[in-house]
Amino acid sequence: MKRSLGVCYYPEHWDEAVWAEDARRMAEAGIRWVRIGEFAWSRMEPAPGRFDWHWLDRAIATLGAAGLKVVLGTPTATPPIWMVEKHPDMLPVDRHGSPRKFGSRRHYDFSHAGYREECRRIVRLMAERYGRDPHVAAWQTDNEYACHDTVHSYSDAARAAFRDWLAQRYQSTDALNRAWGNVFWSMEVTDWSQVDLPNGTVTEPNPSLSLAFRRFASEMVVEFNRVQVEEIRRHSDAPILHNYMGRVTDFDHFAVGADLDAASWDSYPIGFLSDRIENEPERKQTFLRQGDPDNQAFHHDLYRAVGRGRWWVMEQQPGPVNWAPWNPAPLPGMVRLWTWEAFAHGAEVVSYFRWRQAPFAQEQMHAGLLRPDSEPAPGLLEAAEVAQELERMPEIDLAPAPVALVFDYESAWAWEVQPQGRDFDFWRLAFAAYRALRRAGLSVDILPPDAADLSAYKLVLAPGLMRLSDPLREALARYEGLALVGPRTDTKTEELAIRVPLGPDLPGLDARVTLAESLPPGAEVPLENGGRFLHWFEHLEGDAPVAWRTLDGRPAILGNGRVRYLAGWPDDATFDGIVRGLCAEAGIETLDLPDGLRVRDTARHRFVFNYAPEPLPWAGTILIPPAGVFWESR
Amino acid sequence: MKRSLGVCYYPEHWDEAVWAEDARRMAEAGIRWVRIGEFAWSRMEPAPGRFDWHWLDRAIATLGAAGLKVVLGTPTATPPIWMVEKHPDMLPVDRHGSPRKFGSRRHYDFSHAGYREECRRIVRLMAERYGRDPHVAAWQTDNEYACHDTVHSYSDAARAAFRDWLAQRYQSTDALNRAWGNVFWSMEVTDWSQVDLPNGTVTEPNPSLSLAFRRFASEMVVEFNRVQVEEIRRHSDAPILHNYMGRVTDFDHFAVGADLDAASWDSYPIGFLSDRIENEPERKQTFLRQGDPDNQAFHHDLYRAVGRGRWWVMEQQPGPVNWAPWNPAPLPGMVRLWTWEAFAHGAEVVSYFRWRQAPFAQEQMHAGLLRPDSEPAPGLLEAAEVAQELERMPEIDLAPAPVALVFDYESAWAWEVQPQGRDFDFWRLAFAAYRALRRAGLSVDILPPDAADLSAYKLVLAPGLMRLSDPLREALARYEGLALVGPRTDTKTEELAIRVPLGPDLPGLDARVTLAESLPPGAEVPLENGGRFLHWFEHLEGDAPVAWRTLDGRPAILGNGRVRYLAGWPDDATFDGIVRGLCAEAGIETLDLPDGLRVRDTARHRFVFNYAPEPLPWAGTILIPPAGVFWESR
Amino acid sequence: MKRSLGVCYYPEHWDEAVWAEDARRMAEAGIRWVRIGEFAWSRMEPAPGRFDWHWLDRAIATLGAAGLKVVLGTPTATPPIWMVEKHPDMLPVDRHGSPRKFGSRRHYDFSHAGYREECRRIVRLMAERYGRDPHVAAWQTDNEYACHDTVHSYSDAARAAFRDWLAQRYQSTDALNRAWGNVFWSMEVTDWSQVDLPNGTVTEPNPSLSLAFRRFASEMVVEFNRVQVEEIRRHSDAPILHNYMGRVTDFDHFAVGADLDAASWDSYPIGFLSDRIENEPERKQTFLRQGDPDNQAFHHDLYRAVGRGRWWVMEQQPGPVNWAPWNPAPLPGMVRLWTWEAFAHGAEVVSYFRWRQAPFAQEQMHAGLLRPDSEPAPGLLEAAEVAQELERMPEIDLAPAPVALVFDYESAWAWEVQPQGRDFDFWRLAFAAYRALRRAGLSVDILPPDAADLSAYKLVLAPGLMRLSDPLREALARYEGLALVGPRTDTKTEELAIRVPLGPDLPGLDARVTLAESLPPGAEVPLENGGRFLHWFEHLEGDAPVAWRTLDGRPAILGNGRVRYLAGWPDDATFDGIVRGLCAEAGIETLDLPDGLRVRDTARHRFVFNYAPEPLPWAGTILIPPAGVFWESR
Repeated sequence: MKRSLGVCYYPEHWDEAVWAEDARRMAEAGIRWVRIGEFAWSRMEPAPGRFDWHWLDRAIATLGAAGLKVVLGTPTATPPIWMVEKHPDMLPVDRHGSPRKFGSRRHYDFSHAGYREECRRIVRLMAERYGRDPHVAAWQTDNEYACHDTVHSYSDAARAAFRDWLAQRYQSTDALNRAWGNVFWSMEVTDWSQVDLPNGTVTEPNPSLSLAFRRFASEMVVEFNRVQVEEIRRHSDAPILHNYMGRVTDFDHFAVGADLDAASWDSYPIGFLSDRIENEPERKQTFLRQGDPDNQAFHHDLYRAVGRGRWWVMEQQPGPVNWAPWNPAPLPGMVRLWTWEAFAHGAEVVSYFRWRQAPFAQEQMHAGLLRPDSEPAPGLLEAAEVAQELERMPEIDLAPAPVALVFDYESAWAWEVQPQGRDFDFWRLAFAAYRALRRAGLSVDILPPDAADLSAYKLVLAPGLMRLSDPLREALARYEGLALVGPRTDTKTEELAIRVPLGPDLPGLDARVTLAESLPPGAEVPLENGGRFLHWFEHLEGDAPVAWRTLDGRPAILGNGRVRYLAGWPDDATFDGIVRGLCAEAGIETLDLPDGLRVRDTARHRFVFNYAPEPLPWAGTILIPPAGVFWESR
Repeated sequence: MKRSLGVCYYPEHWDEAVWAEDARRMAEAGIRWVRIGEFAWSRMEPAPGRFDWHWLDRAIATLGAAGLKVVLGTPTATPPIWMVEKHPDMLPVDRHGSPRKFGSRRHYDFSHAGYREECRRIVRLMAERYGRDPHVAAWQTDNEYACHDTVHSYSDAARAAFRDWLAQRYQSTDALNRAWGNVFWSMEVTDWSQVDLPNGTVTEPNPSLSLAFRRFASEMVVEFNRVQVEEIRRHSDAPILHNYMGRVTDFDHFAVGADLDAASWDSYPIGFLSDRIENEPERKQTFLRQGDPDNQAFHHDLYRAVGRGRWWVMEQQPGPVNWAPWNPAPLPGMVRLWTWEAFAHGAEVVSYFRWRQAPFAQEQMHAGLLRPDSEPAPGLLEAAEVAQELERMPEIDLAPAPVALVFDYESAWAWEVQPQGRDFDFWRLAFAAYRALRRAGLSVDILPPDAADLSAYKLVLAPGLMRLSDPLREALARYEGLALVGPRTDTKTEELAIRVPLGPDLPGLDARVTLAESLPPGAEVPLENGGRFLHWFEHLEGDAPVAWRTLDGRPAILGNGRVRYLAGWPDDATFDGIVRGLCAEAGIETLDLPDGLRVRDTARHRFVFNYAPEPLPWAGTILIPPAGVFWESR
Repeated sequence: MKRSLGVCYYPEHWDEAVWAEDARRMAEAGIRWVRIGEFAWSRMEPAPGRFDWHWLDRAIATLGAAGLKVVLGTPTATPPIWMVEKHPDMLPVDRHGSPRKFGSRRHYDFSHAGYREECRRIVRLMAERYGRDPHVAAWQTDNEYACHDTVHSYSDAARAAFRDWLAQRYQSTDALNRAWGNVFWSMEVTDWSQVDLPNGTVTEPNPSLSLAFRRFASEMVVEFNRVQVEEIRRHSDAPILHNYMGRVTDFDHFAVGADLDAASWDSYPIGFLSDRIENEPERKQTFLRQGDPDNQAFHHDLYRAVGRGRWWVMEQQPGPVNWAPWNPAPLPGMVRLWTWEAFAHGAEVVSYFRWRQAPFAQEQMHAGLLRPDSEPAPGLLEAAEVAQELERMPEIDLAPAPVALVFDYESAWAWEVQPQGRDFDFWRLAFAAYRALRRAGLSVDILPPDAADLSAYKLVLAPGLMRLSDPLREALARYEGLALVGPRTDTKTEELAIRVPLGPDLPGLDARVTLAESLPPGAEVPLENGGRFLHWFEHLEGDAPVAWRTLDGRPAILGNGRVRYLAGWPDDATFDGIVRGLCAEAGIETLDLPDGLRVRDTARHRFVFNYAPEPLPWAGTILIPPAGVFWESR
């Protein structure tokens, strides 16, 4: 498949006189796609029912005339002030009960029916007008669902919708009381109006309620997105995407993705390193201008799964951003490296955010491909370099990975509700497993929790799943590779109660978790072979043979058959040992990579990326410079 | 006195079919007491005025039939949702003005008259029904007053009650203005309605107001509890207890205790270590699975004072809990150690929380004596071992301790209102003194601030009392042992103003505090003899001889007679030196214990407990294992 | 000019019987001024319209009879409770929307028109009664504007006033939309009622809005103060001052100062060290009992500029305070040192806070010159020593400083709104420059941002100004000394947008900032010559010669002419090197002072102050003790 570049553009920010020149320069730099429109509601509909499409018509025509394909964004992340005046109760409400006001973006509650219909209306009008426009070659719904913590709202609209959702799910309050164990602390209800949102209780609310609220909130995102997809589909055959963010687990991306044609995400490696990814302080320094060497790959692989194989980078960091606690500039070459890495993981398009740095408003300190004075910024030169390299590159086709990792949003909610130890976080656990695989030089596929076929993989990791789905349990029963599950895997019911009989219930492995411990920083459970568990350790019972033991003789890995259970959270070195042992057993070749060097195999190439700030040797004879990208045929 | 074991049980959580078997297994394990009922209001009264006592009748009968004595708890910590619908203004309100909602527990304001009457009603009905039941051998009022920060509420109910309380206390606003010094910053009021609760002011409110609010709030707890005691007493002769928590100073436990027959507390050594007790990080690691070696003993001694000699452990941690930031499992043997330590300090009953781990709701990750699948958890075996040891043990009778420590809730409020240095905390200061005594191998009695007789003790410590009560001042005047008071002792009036003439006013010691300094972490006042003060240092004047001096020549301990004044907060080693010097002078024998080994003397035994994670030597020849309990005759 | 001492006194706190004796003792100690009245509204007007001036008449007469000159404070920082009952909406509102209640002080919103009129009324009455009183020799308006974060209020009153202010400033919403770039994120408004205060948005609001709000809020302080000045001026010729606080940038002190006759500030060296001044932890320890050695001097120089040459210390710390996180006592001698240092910087009066320590209310732990029992506190003796020294001292007249530093409140707002790196703070940057100058032994003048004449100085530093004012730009064009500007200087428009063409626009220097980076703690940009930048680094373009380079060859200081641009935030040693290099070039003699020794030159003397806790050598032969003050003729 041939990959291509894109850029995000805001015609409404600039004098119409420069549009054509901008389009010409984009095309000249090798850019093929341009995303527009997603924040322009106040220009499309300046007053309720008063529309102005002409500027957008001209913008699309101008871009199209330059040979660019347009991704048209729906503007529903930025309802104008008149919308809030019309629906004052559409604002999201924070956990303290305060409305989150107009004045930035995402000031809407996903469950507000009135606003949902307003979105249907504007999207319908856009689809009617542009659905058959030859230049509109893709759509984006809204922008970055969940950004700024907007999935969980404690508004009256959310409360009413939640009660309705509960009534449909449980049918009777008795059933709800039983499902949640509301007899505990006399929390039993007899009417749906007695169930409240899980904020503001004296101490923590019932975890079953908290999980139900997270499920509900995720479904509201799915429904909100579906409305837009329905309207666009009626008038357009172009693919519909949404641009997800990084390290967001507040809604089920697989469920939203099921309604879309492809996934995309907004990749800000340096912003995420500063703000969202746990790392030792020294490691943060080492990768200060490059980003975490595994974070981009992880999200690429995750969103490839969400898009069922089809995905883009919709926004690619091109220089310093404005929103992280600190915002250094990328090391020269990193914009090129990030772009190539995305292609190596299968991105159809990598689209930079944004064309020209805006000198005004919230993101004025966010770099673009052009400076505010329209001169080229460093990112433009690297983007153009990639465009030229792409021309010369044979097509990049993906190959199946030898290993898979199961990722489950519901488990992220479960452990957020019930971490039991302050630092237990599903994303972090899954990422720890992913990093260990990457340190061993492996390409990885990420699977949804209801994956029904594991036969492509020699090794599957499934840490921290609150429960196994039926399809996955059945797939494991048929599986002929090696599977390592745990800790915490399949220990809970759907309602976040403890399974009785005690879980996990695994095919071919007699094991149960009889007791769980969380460990503060500095504490560890040492293993017989020199490794150690941090954060978490489970006491296991079962007839299965013990593969690894703790220093005091308890099972650390239980089972030596197809399915094995990991009793704790290994530190990095221990995870390396576990992964390498399993790979050796499964016949998977591993590498011993220095930190900073990362490998990705496609059908015909092996790509090597150097995230380190110094040159690193590859294959004995090659020295890859900092920010260097190397590829060789396989 | 013969000591016995108990357990907390929730028949309403389980199928009635298992009650008899549960009771049988309890009895078999050597358990004699079972506490029930304290969260079951929604099952006792499912709708307003509609009662269902039959299940409780059967539960009591079943337990009684197995030979168990029942502690019946009043369910007032968990009012059902219909109660909140009936009294919407009964919810406590946080300092930001937000109601703390239904959905967990303790969602009531102590000063709400309507809810207080509802509690009187349900307790009266329980007392009428079960007051003469032969199996109901004790009562518990409510559950863990103050838990989840529920003593201080900023509701309309609290505001109205506070104004009424002030009017009764001060009689006129002029008197209040004078007592508080309201002329400062033009805070004078002319009507009771002008006095507000001390939340939400631009900067700190008048400390006299803040202290008054704390006094008021504490009295509301006393009154709330007294209503229940009155109702139970009308129909039952069984002892009435309340289960206090650890490190809670928000209300005066002595005042609540005056209405009860015995005290009890809920002892969670590992949870408290993680969450509530200041310790060096390394010390937290050392005692991670054992708890702080002095915290349990401190509370045992404190609650023995609160119960005027009679006290229980109502809830004893039996395994990992769910509520601390991190929740490791106890070292094997610790459940036994904690139990024996409580008996050595005089507990009549040690009752484990809880019988079977609930698989559902908020505390599902809290261990019980049984696992959720009804198999024995590790705690059960240790409890049963204690039960067997108790059978063989001669009776444990207490002996008077050689030293006493005065503990005063009002002083905790005073220094919370006016710490003057961010880390000045009364509990922490009192505990520092207690630890020094324990490191010297001493058994300690804790005394209330109005103790009128000190004659049993050779040494009394009274650090940090905002003012000396008249009885204590008179007792000190008659006292023939050694007393060390200060820092901050008797420097304030009842209204938390500075005493003029400057305090303290001590019998036989001419001393006054002319200036006080608080010190940030890292700063110290070095003493002539190598010791040092941290946190706090007072400049003293007076004719008394100087016993210890600072390096720059100021008094560090003033006086060499019966009563002496300590001018600062000694670090641990300095406190050791002070305590050992006083003991030598007073003729009290001290020990030199390694950290982790702790000693408690009863009438006929010396008990030795090893809290360390490694074996420790005792008396030269004996090696006590980790979690080991040793006793010898005295 | 002859300098003198003062003290703050609260006759309303004490029995009238002691006033005369207090006054006698003040005079005896050498005190010449006494400030009274500023918190006594509830005694001046106990009920609305009911006045009692007699006590104040007698207090002024008594003080005057002892030869003391009275500074009369307006009591508007402490409106009585009846005022809040009359104007319930006068309370300031915090950013979460909660009113900040009565019960301490400063409980008013600067923009509330009703309260402003009440202030006009009480000030008019005071001015009418005391404007010609021979003992009333100066006035103070209100007390410590901005203290307790009271400039920014989110009340309805503020919202209405802000909309009105915007309408006057921008004339049309279209103009506002364009000025702020509201097209970004569809934030465009069509009616003034659609603009809200910048609190509670989902993510950050438009920085132009946030800056406008800060400008508005500052102007409200100016207007509030002006009302009082107008009323006093009608009846009195005595100078009018306000007592500013330290490290406050929430309003433009130059603008308030323009309406006053002199500035004054409240100098609490130890409180500020503990609470407000960034320092390495070890440095905080070193100066624990002395205060930061540059902080007092900085504010002296700043307020000399605010007062256009005339300024006082209105409140001087005399011992431990009560309000910092920790409150140690000053090193003996420091009260004298602080006083002399203020005189050396030109203070007309240094007035201690307060005469007698109040035993009651919020500040009871704040030392005075007397103890609560009326005995002398240590500060009194040091004050009296200064009074005697002053008698013998020839007059202290100021000399022009060789170097100047530009300080701009608007830039502090700009970078607070848009730090871009979490630790970028204008005050801190300006103070870093000031410290470097002081470490070189230099006396410094501080200039306002519209300084139009630089000709008195050989060197001018202007770091971090968001934009150059027209007068300053013109002054730089005429300037014949050396000027170092940057980082961030003149990179923004008035509306906090990026300048296009890119800034700075400097006379005689071709330079533009093409990209800005912020750096987390631990990261740095190393310079060729061994120095380094922390926090901030800008990429510069321009034809000017590069004076200093980064290790990787970018400009670190651009230009070698009259005006140069500094591309980053130097660490202390690097700043020292920069300052010493510029001074050498400009012909300014520098010293090499040990940390703790500081120098200040007046017309006839060189003063040397030892802030260190140990003796330090001066000029080879002299050893200055800790807290020592040395002066020699120039």
